[in-house]
Amino acid sequence: VSSLRADLEAAACIGADERGGVSRFAWTRELAQANAWLMERLSELGLTAELDPAGNVLGRWESGKGTAVLLGSHLDTVPNGGRFDGALGVLAALDVVRRLRAEGVEPRRPVWIASFNDEEGARFQTGMLGSRAFCGECDLEDWGGRGIPEAMAEAGLDFARLAGARRVDEVGAYLELHIEQGPVLERSGADLGVVTAITGMLGFRARFVGEANHAGTTPMEHRRDALAGGARTVLALRDAARERGDMTANVGVISAEPGGFNVVPGAAELTVDVRSPSPETYAALEPLVRETLSAIAAEEGLGLELAETHRKPPVALDPGLQDALEAAARDEGATTLRMPSGAGHDAMVLAHHVPAGMLFVPSRGGVSHSPAEFTSAEHCELGARVLARAVRALLG
Amino acid sequence: VSSLRADLEAAACIGADERGGVSRFAWTRELAQANAWLMERLSELGLTAELDPAGNVLGRWESGKGTAVLLGSHLDTVPNGGRFDGALGVLAALDVVRRLRAEGVEPRRPVWIASFNDEEGARFQTGMLGSRAFCGECDLEDWGGRGIPEAMAEAGLDFARLAGARRVDEVGAYLELHIEQGPVLERSGADLGVVTAITGMLGFRARFVGEANHAGTTPMEHRRDALAGGARTVLALRDAARERGDMTANVGVISAEPGGFNVVPGAAELTVDVRSPSPETYAALEPLVRETLSAIAAEEGLGLELAETHRKPPVALDPGLQDALEAAARDEGATTLRMPSGAGHDAMVLAHHVPAGMLFVPSRGGVSHSPAEFTSAEHCELGARVLARAVRALLG
Repeated sequence: VSSLRADLEAAACIGADERGGVSRFAWTRELAQANAWLMERLSELGLTAELDPAGNVLGRWESGKGTAVLLGSHLDTVPNGGRFDGALGVLAALDVVRRLRAEGVEPRRPVWIASFNDEEGARFQTGMLGSRAFCGECDLEDWGGRGIPEAMAEAGLDFARLAGARRVDEVGAYLELHIEQGPVLERSGADLGVVTAITGMLGFRARFVGEANHAGTTPMEHRRDALAGGARTVLALRDAARERGDMTANVGVISAEPGGFNVVPGAAELTVDVRSPSPETYAALEPLVRETLSAIAAEEGLGLELAETHRKPPVALDPGLQDALEAAARDEGATTLRMPSGAGHDAMVLAHHVPAGMLFVPSRGGVSHSPAEFTSAEHCELGARVLARAVRALLG
Repeated sequence: VSSLRADLEAAACIGADERGGVSRFAWTRELAQANAWLMERLSELGLTAELDPAGNVLGRWESGKGTAVLLGSHLDTVPNGGRFDGALGVLAALDVVRRLRAEGVEPRRPVWIASFNDEEGARFQTGMLGSRAFCGECDLEDWGGRGIPEAMAEAGLDFARLAGARRVDEVGAYLELHIEQGPVLERSGADLGVVTAITGMLGFRARFVGEANHAGTTPMEHRRDALAGGARTVLALRDAARERGDMTANVGVISAEPGGFNVVPGAAELTVDVRSPSPETYAALEPLVRETLSAIAAEEGLGLELAETHRKPPVALDPGLQDALEAAARDEGATTLRMPSGAGHDAMVLAHHVPAGMLFVPSRGGVSHSPAEFTSAEHCELGARVLARAVRALLG
């Protein structure tokens, strides 16, 4: 059993929940326990281990000079999550340093490891709070009202000192190994994915308003059925995404009001989530959604309320680091696929500040955010070896 | 102010709720109060007034010989209902007897008035319990498990004696005046509707099963989106109903699971309600629903579970009584429209046992089951006068 595999086993026990998954949320006892475990491992490897003001665990191998090569991911999870999402990247970073130590390498620049806090944002509906604070993107006002200051205080941290987590200026490159969380790699047959860009995402809450009526006494031609607007939206956005090719569209939540089997829906509410890694297509998403839904509402004689819920433009990852990861994979005898990431990651935040690269390992069946999430030990270890090669190249 | 108008005002105060509507449910204090009020009015008119074992109020003018002419409707309401639905038919029956008394008529056969209990079924999700008991259709087993025996006991009634409410064998004809609860009469410009049939209705709960997936990482072509099945159902049934003409279709309730904006729905549940007053079309409804949904499931690669929730075949009303109501309207100078009823009524139950006829007055804007339900005093009084003429004709 490799050290990485043993570390994955050990980490999966911390915050193991009664439904067979892992539940570790920001500023909870479970994540604190995982952080303490990680800091012990970092110290064993001779790194300076600390918990920063945002709750990120930072391990620093201060060696040589210049900016650091930062390896990172996260140890927090979604509720009842899997054991690989986030944890693999942190433990692979440990494995890289362990290899470099074993090889007696004396790095010509610092090598850092980060376990970013609250990437999933499961507890306070935030997301990437730790890496954003690390990059100086603290939106204190937005985060202040959700109970975060209180949760931080209970964990011995001070919300007012969040800005002190900014260390990105000392970093020269960021690398993250992560599971794909989708089916593309497995279906392609490639061993590893070299991520080209992280998808941009845009979300809305849409509400069609018609007229609630008796479903038996109102003839079809006199109805203004709000759910017809909702149903047409589901299908029209799917058609548009299929046609365009480099985008996705999803309606994940839908309801009809008043919600009786014998009442024609007077209102229908739904969520719209559209994504694209291409800047051109991303720019077209908002007009696409607005025009599609407006046209449906007009044709159905319905009112339409459309409120934006989230907006994150796509981020291209560094071409030089893509090449470096691809070369490292080739040298390990692994096949690769260049692909965008359909999910957000800490690398998305870092990429706005420093050259950032991401490497994917396959997810069996594309399953993630579930206890069934699985990546073979072989793929995990291959990913860590390729990461180590890429780091060696960066160290010169 | 006419007596009918005054009675409508008086009845609307009993069970008036804080949201401007009327809430009177089976075996509650509010309905008991309305029943007591009605029994006083019946007694004043010289009728034998009684509360039968099912909670129906029965007023009997025993005169002449042979089977009775029964006039009826109901005083129970939906939650926050209107003041006309049901009440108009009961109070118009009072008005008919009041007119006959004033004219000194000595009927050659009995004239009865019934206010059937629990037509709406709002409290125990039953529906037409009173008229069904009156017709001997007591399904004691079905009704026993919903708290009805306990509610009856609190109201001083004995569930075990429900079968004693059967009196339909003494009835020779049934007439009911009711608001239309739809927009057809108002839009047609006719004063009154002569009901030809009561629509048949058929209902299902449908569940499409696909695969829940990450909405960002799962390419469009790899999704099995259960909500796509739901959306196509909404539109396909609407198209079929529009095309066929003599039917309606409604999806009034819908949901997606697990219900996250960023998760492709793994399951979608919805209600299907289809109706037709035509026996031929009604017979085609079940295959239509089953084939449409099965085809959608097959095309989308989804599983489908389809469970029947309700089934009531259409009921034709008596042609002789339709003619009698039309002739009476003509003699009052009123225009009529022959039309089916899209909603169920006590007449639907009675029509299986005795010749039954129904007369509709217009509902403003087609609105019902709402405090905004409204029919003009002129239309109410016209309906009562036409009903009186039809009764006189039946009395010979």
